[in-house]
Amino acid sequence: MNAPARAPLMALDQALAALLERATPLAGTETVPTFDAAARVLAQDLVSALQVPPNDNASMDGYAVRTADVTAAGAVLPVSQRIPAGHAGEPLKPGTCARIFTGAPLPAGADAVVMQEDTREVGGDLHAVHIDAVPAPGQWVRRAGEDVTRGAVVLARGQRLDEAALGLAASLGLAQLPVARRPRVALFSTGDELVMPGEVPPEAMKPGAIYNSNRFFLRALLQRFGCEVSDLGIVPDRREATLAALKTAADHHDLILTSGGVSVGEEDHIKPAVQQLGGLDLWQIAMKPGKPFAYGHVRRDPGVPGAAPGDCHFIGLPGNPVSSYVTFLLLVRPFLLKLQGVSDPAALRLPPAMALRADFAVPRADKRREFLRVRRNAQGGLDLFPNQSSGVLTSTVWADGLVDNPAGTTIAPGDTVSFIALSDLLA
Amino acid sequence: MNAPARAPLMALDQALAALLERATPLAGTETVPTFDAAARVLAQDLVSALQVPPNDNASMDGYAVRTADVTAAGAVLPVSQRIPAGHAGEPLKPGTCARIFTGAPLPAGADAVVMQEDTREVGGDLHAVHIDAVPAPGQWVRRAGEDVTRGAVVLARGQRLDEAALGLAASLGLAQLPVARRPRVALFSTGDELVMPGEVPPEAMKPGAIYNSNRFFLRALLQRFGCEVSDLGIVPDRREATLAALKTAADHHDLILTSGGVSVGEEDHIKPAVQQLGGLDLWQIAMKPGKPFAYGHVRRDPGVPGAAPGDCHFIGLPGNPVSSYVTFLLLVRPFLLKLQGVSDPAALRLPPAMALRADFAVPRADKRREFLRVRRNAQGGLDLFPNQSSGVLTSTVWADGLVDNPAGTTIAPGDTVSFIALSDLLA
Repeated sequence: MNAPARAPLMALDQALAALLERATPLAGTETVPTFDAAARVLAQDLVSALQVPPNDNASMDGYAVRTADVTAAGAVLPVSQRIPAGHAGEPLKPGTCARIFTGAPLPAGADAVVMQEDTREVGGDLHAVHIDAVPAPGQWVRRAGEDVTRGAVVLARGQRLDEAALGLAASLGLAQLPVARRPRVALFSTGDELVMPGEVPPEAMKPGAIYNSNRFFLRALLQRFGCEVSDLGIVPDRREATLAALKTAADHHDLILTSGGVSVGEEDHIKPAVQQLGGLDLWQIAMKPGKPFAYGHVRRDPGVPGAAPGDCHFIGLPGNPVSSYVTFLLLVRPFLLKLQGVSDPAALRLPPAMALRADFAVPRADKRREFLRVRRNAQGGLDLFPNQSSGVLTSTVWADGLVDNPAGTTIAPGDTVSFIALSDLLA
Repeated sequence: MNAPARAPLMALDQALAALLERATPLAGTETVPTFDAAARVLAQDLVSALQVPPNDNASMDGYAVRTADVTAAGAVLPVSQRIPAGHAGEPLKPGTCARIFTGAPLPAGADAVVMQEDTREVGGDLHAVHIDAVPAPGQWVRRAGEDVTRGAVVLARGQRLDEAALGLAASLGLAQLPVARRPRVALFSTGDELVMPGEVPPEAMKPGAIYNSNRFFLRALLQRFGCEVSDLGIVPDRREATLAALKTAADHHDLILTSGGVSVGEEDHIKPAVQQLGGLDLWQIAMKPGKPFAYGHVRRDPGVPGAAPGDCHFIGLPGNPVSSYVTFLLLVRPFLLKLQGVSDPAALRLPPAMALRADFAVPRADKRREFLRVRRNAQGGLDLFPNQSSGVLTSTVWADGLVDNPAGTTIAPGDTVSFIALSDLLA
């Protein structure tokens, strides 16, 4: 056998499009308490059964008036009632005002609120107030339905729920929300050299042995993006056991995720096993870090009780920690969101890049599109982590973003570059 | 009683500094599995007991060589051994090469790796290869300790752990991590008008009644920032019951958080109760949304078994949902991080603002510093949510950031404004 010919590299955008095409939204929804719905994806439009605010109401503490009664500063009006938030007042008697608090419904007849700071009490007894400023109609009044009209779609199907969205759903009276079910992901590690932290102390590590770090961030990232994770440990190093492990995982999961074992020359049992059980494409993506990447599928046994219909997805990430981390955020994240029914194209693309100033140099251009680990500095520019090795996560922990540097491009200090915030990739 | 005199407004930066001054890091640490340490804060420096990589190793699949043996392209070298990742090879015999895989230790004597794509096998039997490119010493070799030297502080005390940091800790062999204990937060809601979603259907809501939405996002945000939350529901509307509820909460929590009831004219029992049990300052912050804000403390009863020593913090947020949400992110978030021992000043300030183009107008200047809800558009500019009311969270759900607009400043389309990403405030 000769060494494989150099395959043309695949562009990142092409790889993302191919992955998203394969990510058919999962069937199945569930209803969860609104309190527990953070990071889930809405399975139905939420239509408002009420208007917000429900009534015209005061947006400041003060006095509700008929503006016709206050045509000049210095008017004195008797206080005919007192309306705290949560209480409906009586219709406002002409020639009087009502003490009113933020959020309280405006009494019938009133058309403005004078804020407390623009009034003075007459005597000490709250019977009457001087109005020191002439109110315009509608002043300090929030109109009924101003924020949400009845029947409006307030949150659309496919929306990923953050804390603010939970609050918005609650403000419509919704104590439970219909959401897409969580993707079930089986996580495997590959590599004879991997040792689990805690199993062997650093001083007893054999030559060539390294601690398995990818499993830690991959599990946490999968959970962040709404998945239910089965951590299945190290792929067995015998062919038959690998086949059996993959088959069982496929029957009960939507995605099998591995890291390592997908480079051209790498030796392991997982590539031929996935080939045999379904199919596998080895992509060489024109990006750095992150070149080797595999997408495939494993057929499910339709006879197994509890097995989902169809195929289980397979994604193989590179083994280098930084490559694995970056390809997860750029490729697996949108894949998982689409599985959950996220439909907004903006949420499935790379987050918006911002044009910032490089306070560093990259004197040697790379053949591949490169994602450099950088951090915003106090001067509004970007600093580069000096060691861009993909072997440890130090650069990724230090960084707060990536510079998306096109293939064949050098960077000189002062150049404007494209910055993608890690916080956007983790949102 | 006359209406209170108009107090001078406090600048946001001043309010933040005052809050951080009061946020003494909590005593108490715990040890948690690295797998469960996401969003926690390190209580000790992590010092590496090993070097990464542990040995000089291959950064590509290919052939390890002595560069002295390959002085011209086309050299043919017999393959004297095969070194997969995780296996130590034998010293490399001069005049031969070793088949080697990414991550495998370089054999003694070898000083470079020729990548597989620059070689051709001689015959079909892997006994020898043509080397088609002349390697430079050190080529495709990662040096021992290149990424982490033994004894280096890899993650510092006070570092908040994200997924990448968990991976980095695992790569040092750490299966458990020392972290600050979670702040214990008692969450109260105030307001007679508040109804819990699920308790009353929209069509049966009384005039003036609104659903309690703040509780939903505040609870989820507190959890996001590492807190243990006791949701204590609505503050009782009787003075004695309020005093009792606050006292009990103070004995067992680090912070009592409420929303609503802190405006100048608002009526409720919580302000006088906190005054009586400790102390309370009502701040009027020169920001929009979010003017009313209260900071205080409740003394703990030293005789109660299980009560922590010292005082319990009290923070009262405004009742309007957007005001409550924004003041939480700008003020409570750094307060909570400091309680957990985060010490990096950059993590306790507002996140870095980015200069972006406004594709909207704000023709009327506000007297207060304003945080406008905006979204980045496909043209690299910012769109403004048309309804900037603080009454519903619609703007906040739609937005991906805030424009930090100085007091007294109008905005015309094309102006450069300061953008703060919500993802940074949620990170």
